[in-house]
Amino acid sequence: MNPVIDLLKSHRSIRKFTGQSIPRDLFRSILEAGQSAATSNHVQACSIIHIRDPEKRRQMAELAGGQSYVADCSDFLVFCADMKRSIDAAARAGAEVQTGMTEQHIVATVDAALMAQNVAVAAESAGLGICYIGGVRNNPGPISELLELPKFVYPVFGLCMGYADQDPEVKPRLPLEAILKEDRYHSDEDSRQVREFDDTMNRYYLERTGGNKDTTWSEQLMPLFTGKLRPHMREFLAKQGFEMK
Amino acid sequence: MNPVIDLLKSHRSIRKFTGQSIPRDLFRSILEAGQSAATSNHVQACSIIHIRDPEKRRQMAELAGGQSYVADCSDFLVFCADMKRSIDAAARAGAEVQTGMTEQHIVATVDAALMAQNVAVAAESAGLGICYIGGVRNNPGPISELLELPKFVYPVFGLCMGYADQDPEVKPRLPLEAILKEDRYHSDEDSRQVREFDDTMNRYYLERTGGNKDTTWSEQLMPLFTGKLRPHMREFLAKQGFEMK
Repeated sequence: MNPVIDLLKSHRSIRKFTGQSIPRDLFRSILEAGQSAATSNHVQACSIIHIRDPEKRRQMAELAGGQSYVADCSDFLVFCADMKRSIDAAARAGAEVQTGMTEQHIVATVDAALMAQNVAVAAESAGLGICYIGGVRNNPGPISELLELPKFVYPVFGLCMGYADQDPEVKPRLPLEAILKEDRYHSDEDSRQVREFDDTMNRYYLERTGGNKDTTWSEQLMPLFTGKLRPHMREFLAKQGFEMK
Repeated sequence: MNPVIDLLKSHRSIRKFTGQSIPRDLFRSILEAGQSAATSNHVQACSIIHIRDPEKRRQMAELAGGQSYVADCSDFLVFCADMKRSIDAAARAGAEVQTGMTEQHIVATVDAALMAQNVAVAAESAGLGICYIGGVRNNPGPISELLELPKFVYPVFGLCMGYADQDPEVKPRLPLEAILKEDRYHSDEDSRQVREFDDTMNRYYLERTGGNKDTTWSEQLMPLFTGKLRPHMREFLAKQGFEMK
């Protein structure tokens, strides 16, 4: 359709990087592109911790679930939902600040995600590879200590950036018809679409692993819904001042 | 730096649209680009309600706080965090599903935001203008009824898309140094940076309004922290099955 849309459609996560460093002027430009994303009420409720210290990188790789590319990529960023800066600013301006509202949590989480996706697109436009690291929520407490995150700041995800040392396929997505609904939500076709997508993903996994990974999309989802994936998030967020009031 | 980064840096919200419709093949391609965004554990926890019915558009514009461009733009989308599809799929695959976990809420909210930002970038790459509508969270209950959203689905924000009938300036952002921190969080420079940014925004508002809007960034933030902005979100989310356990 156009080169940007083609670029977006060619996204795949990169988990193996060459040792090459991203030039600093490009790195800066990518982050500025991130800042240009929309932000709710102009609050800009995101801070990025750029982890340069090799020992902290090693610790982060481990705390994020043993993901070595966190240590090996050129640059590793932790995107934090950050209400501290704006809470402090509003307080200095005279607001009687009320914190811990669910709405504030949503605003900050969405702001961090929009900024990160612009960073991802900007990086890929410059020929770099990226990988989101939701694993920073595996151990958000120790990670927050390591990065000295204060109250009203929480790590939403990490992002690896660097020069790709692999060329994986684009991973299939659900058919557009499954996610796009007209005028009202309906799920009449869901089970058929999911069954077909299960077949697609089963073939994809089998082909990529020489027959070793015989699973489906639905089966892969199961851990997310057994209550075992990061059950600590509520308590952790409350401790950080996101009480979900 | 490169044309994509330049495009990202030129973003501004468009709130006035010509009557021209987006061609359907372009519209489809933009949404497919949205689907290509990263998704946590491949869950693809987003559904988009495309509102075509003029009467529903009018109601949405009103429910979102009287934003006429919701009715006037070529296409209006409501991005929903959707765990229903994957909960149903995991259940059919045999999972004893546990719902309402805070982690699931974060996953779905981030998935919706990443997909939306790709849609926004794809649209802008084709010369369209966009505007996020956080105002769908003003009245999430009535909106969910209007769009027949089931349990485990909630409207995160809307997105207007169309051909711009205005050419607003790019809105300033905090200096990169304010949001980018090395190896650890620190806020040593926050109050100085915010004071300078307050001056920047004060000049920006004064210039754009011929001296009528004499306010700062910090002052503009105040409503977000008085507890009055969307205090219903927690109760609404719980009703939709996002109990934040």
